[in-house]
Amino acid sequence: MSERGAAGPGPATIQVSRIMRPDDANVAGNVHGGTVLKMIEEAGAIISTRHCNSGTGEPCVAALARVERTDFLSPMCIGEVANVSAEITYTSKHSVEVQVNVMSENILTGAKKVTNKATLWYVPLALKNVNKVVEVPPIQYARKEQEDEGRKRYEEQKLDRLETKQRNGDVILPVINPDRQTKEPHTVGYSQSSLIHLVGPSDCTLLGFVHGGVTMKLMDEVAGIVAARHCKTNIVTASVDAINFHEKIKKGSVITISGRMTFTSNKSMEIEVFVDADPFVDEPQERYRAVSAFFTYVSLSKEGKPLPVPQLLTETEDEKRRFEEGKGRYLQTKAKRQAQMQQAAQH
Amino acid sequence: MSERGAAGPGPATIQVSRIMRPDDANVAGNVHGGTVLKMIEEAGAIISTRHCNSGTGEPCVAALARVERTDFLSPMCIGEVANVSAEITYTSKHSVEVQVNVMSENILTGAKKVTNKATLWYVPLALKNVNKVVEVPPIQYARKEQEDEGRKRYEEQKLDRLETKQRNGDVILPVINPDRQTKEPHTVGYSQSSLIHLVGPSDCTLLGFVHGGVTMKLMDEVAGIVAARHCKTNIVTASVDAINFHEKIKKGSVITISGRMTFTSNKSMEIEVFVDADPFVDEPQERYRAVSAFFTYVSLSKEGKPLPVPQLLTETEDEKRRFEEGKGRYLQTKAKRQAQMQQAAQH
Amino acid sequence: MSERGAAGPGPATIQVSRIMRPDDANVAGNVHGGTVLKMIEEAGAIISTRHCNSGTGEPCVAALARVERTDFLSPMCIGEVANVSAEITYTSKHSVEVQVNVMSENILTGAKKVTNKATLWYVPLALKNVNKVVEVPPIQYARKEQEDEGRKRYEEQKLDRLETKQRNGDVILPVINPDRQTKEPHTVGYSQSSLIHLVGPSDCTLLGFVHGGVTMKLMDEVAGIVAARHCKTNIVTASVDAINFHEKIKKGSVITISGRMTFTSNKSMEIEVFVDADPFVDEPQERYRAVSAFFTYVSLSKEGKPLPVPQLLTETEDEKRRFEEGKGRYLQTKAKRQAQMQQAAQH
Repeated sequence: MSERGAAGPGPATIQVSRIMRPDDANVAGNVHGGTVLKMIEEAGAIISTRHCNSGTGEPCVAALARVERTDFLSPMCIGEVANVSAEITYTSKHSVEVQVNVMSENILTGAKKVTNKATLWYVPLALKNVNKVVEVPPIQYARKEQEDEGRKRYEEQKLDRLETKQRNGDVILPVINPDRQTKEPHTVGYSQSSLIHLVGPSDCTLLGFVHGGVTMKLMDEVAGIVAARHCKTNIVTASVDAINFHEKIKKGSVITISGRMTFTSNKSMEIEVFVDADPFVDEPQERYRAVSAFFTYVSLSKEGKPLPVPQLLTETEDEKRRFEEGKGRYLQTKAKRQAQMQQAAQH
Repeated sequence: MSERGAAGPGPATIQVSRIMRPDDANVAGNVHGGTVLKMIEEAGAIISTRHCNSGTGEPCVAALARVERTDFLSPMCIGEVANVSAEITYTSKHSVEVQVNVMSENILTGAKKVTNKATLWYVPLALKNVNKVVEVPPIQYARKEQEDEGRKRYEEQKLDRLETKQRNGDVILPVINPDRQTKEPHTVGYSQSSLIHLVGPSDCTLLGFVHGGVTMKLMDEVAGIVAARHCKTNIVTASVDAINFHEKIKKGSVITISGRMTFTSNKSMEIEVFVDADPFVDEPQERYRAVSAFFTYVSLSKEGKPLPVPQLLTETEDEKRRFEEGKGRYLQTKAKRQAQMQQAAQH
Repeated sequence: MSERGAAGPGPATIQVSRIMRPDDANVAGNVHGGTVLKMIEEAGAIISTRHCNSGTGEPCVAALARVERTDFLSPMCIGEVANVSAEITYTSKHSVEVQVNVMSENILTGAKKVTNKATLWYVPLALKNVNKVVEVPPIQYARKEQEDEGRKRYEEQKLDRLETKQRNGDVILPVINPDRQTKEPHTVGYSQSSLIHLVGPSDCTLLGFVHGGVTMKLMDEVAGIVAARHCKTNIVTASVDAINFHEKIKKGSVITISGRMTFTSNKSMEIEVFVDADPFVDEPQERYRAVSAFFTYVSLSKEGKPLPVPQLLTETEDEKRRFEEGKGRYLQTKAKRQAQMQQAAQH
């Protein structure tokens, strides 16, 4: 490790480690995907805020704009150490790309596993004027093609963010906590769930807005309840689709996090999650949609093997349409993964 | 649940759900009554603050003034989901009545049980001037008699609050942490206990005062320690008498929560709990009694059946007097419950 | 940074970073020394548990045995990032020495400051038998003299631990929560304070015993209350004397953390803190002294400059004796520091 590395964190990487506690996990001892997402986002917020203030521009705080799709490759357990390392891999004029690796480490056996990799996009907001986006100091690339690849990723995510924004408007607020007694098991309404949280001081950044990681942790929690209600087994987060953070959420707001199942394959469940914020005291502002995302869960046996999941019963036209859309996403992801595996096999 | 309740978080109902974690429960896995009281209060604070800001008046935050007596009908376990739903059922000029239902749900079996029902009273305090009580926008009643019944409840609790305030002055601060070695088991002094807590930012509302739910959680925690010291078995909260919040507690205060056993029946223990606040830095204000209440606990076997409890040994005149008063409350509650059951049987 | 540093945590160093939140700080926004101590101990527990399991011995968990004296060189603020890096610097047959550096980083200005350095000693306890100390795999030293210096530190701390153990027995349990109204300001009794805490699952290691860092955080919290009661100003931790962890504390215990002021210099206050554990349900075991330590606090003006502190009024013979002992420690530390500065000036 270099002299500077020994003395403190260098400018371009950061490492966060923490022992997983009982509160980080479900009853079976598997760490919630949301705990991992929260750690990832904290590392990303530190490194990107640090970078955005390294130039001569005005003081700013990096706000999470987007998290790319991430797969949870292996479950973590209570007592294991989560090692999160983050580095900046691309900068545009107004945004920063951070790539994060998470490894679980069993400090008793020494066994280490890659848990997941994630890519996050941050936008720097002026400390004195939260509506002003400041300029990002450019990073140095070791090779020209790194910059070109980064620019390509930047353009792709930009397009996707615009698209989601439009789709977002269409979405109807899900029925919240229906009277489950009158619902058939395995219908959408049966497992649909919500959480409500009053945003406290420790949930927020210096700007007084909720950390993206806090929001993602709650989203994963509600998705987990939906999945458990549907399956009645031990369930774990398998992946999260790209999440776009369209609107900030202010300290003191009440946030409602709602989840409904949209699709089931043989061994996975897709859950759509919405976050709605109600800044009910300070301002005359109305309740608004802040974030939405798709979580995929799998059901595990006691030995940790994936179990078949009960098929989702769709009743309304909307439910049937969403099921087909979910199937589309599922098949697309599957095809992409197979292509990657073939590519890897050829090399 | 009414039609509106089913439709989602309208202006007048709210639903909060959360998975019970290890930190929410005792060593035997039974969720603390205090965890439930804290969730109930958070739901009540959200719905009443939202309602009080729905008119044209100045921004305000609802502060808990009183919780009516509540019975814990069945214990909850780690991994179960607590579903808390709250609705506003009456408004006076300066206060709001919230009724709350709590159901435990085993998301693996689908089994649901009513855990308890509670009634809370909130008073809206101006955001800019915490000593000013603002006016509450009136709610609409479906039937005239709902309003009349509400007004009756309002008058009753008002009377009771005045009475408790007077009684409160008499109470002597309990001895803290007696030297247990020198005390006989089953005496009052033997099980008497305290917790002392420094109030942090996350314990507080936007106004900088402790959430009523945080206080109740600590009260239940100390009552549980007293009961466990007396019984040496697994104990759970059976009921809480009406609690009045006379004095606010400011951020940064040190609070001492003390409990002493006052009465035992064959299968229950009554514990009196006091909360004293010491705003030790900011102000020349002296230590003051903020809240007091009676908690009833039962002892459970490993199969969850109520066990006989060792009888309390009273030594001093005061202890004997308090035992008789506790017996009075016990017999009164028992008579009331039998009357209700007979009434229910006749209908 | 080396390849291994970038790729993840090597076997011999660890880096932990976290943004400081409102809950980590006092009302003036200064981060509690206890927050830092807790982070330090978590890093130490991870790295030493990892190391002790790297050989062929049986699975074990490293338990904190001792923290050497540490100075807090500059206060940290909410929103700053605490960067904690730890490395193993010596191993004896049954213990591990970990050295930790903490730097605060203002990610808006880029300013970095050394907050403190600490040395911790851990002892590996068998996972299956907590009373069995297992053998520590030896580390490799770059130079022979590193090993010799380490052995010297090891012998010194061993001696000191024995000594404290003897002294500890003499100490009398402090009066808890005196009636402040009847006490003169600036007496020992006036500022004497306690916290009482029920140990929950998230406070504990895999072995079911309280993390040393959790205990130190509570100790610093009570010392801060004592200092604030004495001064009525903004106070911060300046240093902590060596802390020895003689006795483990089991999950479910009630712990009483008590602090009393022992000495004041012109600009500092020394506070003695005791931790007593009461394993009140599980066992016939009596209340016992688990840890004790001396904390030094300073009072800061709004500009962050040290203020004069009111002199402690000693009343009893014991208080006068403890004051003189405190003065001895103070003068000894001062002399040591001056010697170090002269030595540094000569080099």
